[in-house]
Amino acid sequence: MELFDVIKSRRSYRGMYQQKPVSREDLRLIMEAALAAPSGCNKQTTSVIAVDDPELMKQLGDMLGKPNFASAPAAVCILSEKKIAYKNRTFFVQDYSAAIQNALLAIQGLGLESCWVEGYVTDTDCIGRKMADLLGVPENIDLVCYLPVGYAAEEGSYVQKMPFEERAWFNGYRK
Amino acid sequence: MELFDVIKSRRSYRGMYQQKPVSREDLRLIMEAALAAPSGCNKQTTSVIAVDDPELMKQLGDMLGKPNFASAPAAVCILSEKKIAYKNRTFFVQDYSAAIQNALLAIQGLGLESCWVEGYVTDTDCIGRKMADLLGVPENIDLVCYLPVGYAAEEGSYVQKMPFEERAWFNGYRK
Repeated sequence: MELFDVIKSRRSYRGMYQQKPVSREDLRLIMEAALAAPSGCNKQTTSVIAVDDPELMKQLGDMLGKPNFASAPAAVCILSEKKIAYKNRTFFVQDYSAAIQNALLAIQGLGLESCWVEGYVTDTDCIGRKMADLLGVPENIDLVCYLPVGYAAEEGSYVQKMPFEERAWFNGYRK
Repeated sequence: MELFDVIKSRRSYRGMYQQKPVSREDLRLIMEAALAAPSGCNKQTTSVIAVDDPELMKQLGDMLGKPNFASAPAAVCILSEKKIAYKNRTFFVQDYSAAIQNALLAIQGLGLESCWVEGYVTDTDCIGRKMADLLGVPENIDLVCYLPVGYAAEEGSYVQKMPFEERAWFNGYRK
């Protein structure tokens, strides 16, 4: 679990999951990692719910409608409150995104798999709100991301990234 | 540089920096970490410029107007392009925030210090645009965050976070 090894090996897993459960200890480490991320003006707008209850997982999976993600035995739901940081400025998207990235690294470091599932749950059909209602999340707090957590049951297929030289330079743009 | 040690020890440093330079090798590792973050629909909306040229650092520091951050011998500037991911949806804020979090962990893991400086550079006085112009960044790409990078010259003062139990639960909100 060396930092740079984990950062470089992390990838989004979109395959099916084994039914092997995820330990409470691992789920707690993932949640602690998420909450260790910084937040704009330290407003701590992000909170998390780990789900490992089989009945709740089934209901959330049915709402999600994605058999691959729904096959995971556990999930970490990312919650966000749209607090003002200062003047009229908010940083809640930045806050929860940093928290999610920490959680994803923790998941990878523990030998587990996940995928940042945000678009599906915050689209016009409001799946995130239905999930939030099931989990008792109050109306002023949004469920913005669903992280399935579990062990891979198959080989995943992974995206490619552009080469370093196309996205990073020293002392000037495209230098 | 064990993953969880770095995640838990990372903090925002707001003190003055030593003049000791940051190696190109370290700056490259920080940039690679940033670019290893996921992006919505793999649009790779984030790019980075590391600055270690003393004259450029002086000009960027003058623009920033914050003596503590300006004292760093190097910086990583985070660039973002507002690309559509699908339909009318964008995830560029999520993308660059995940990249910044990876960069901050890399910085911490290398024994360096930094702070997520976003509000100052994206406020109504458009410091980020001035910095972008100096670095030759085209108009369609924004400089959204300035990460000073260097070695601490003094003890920092750090914020406190709420306890775990106030922000994380199993199988339901505040359960």
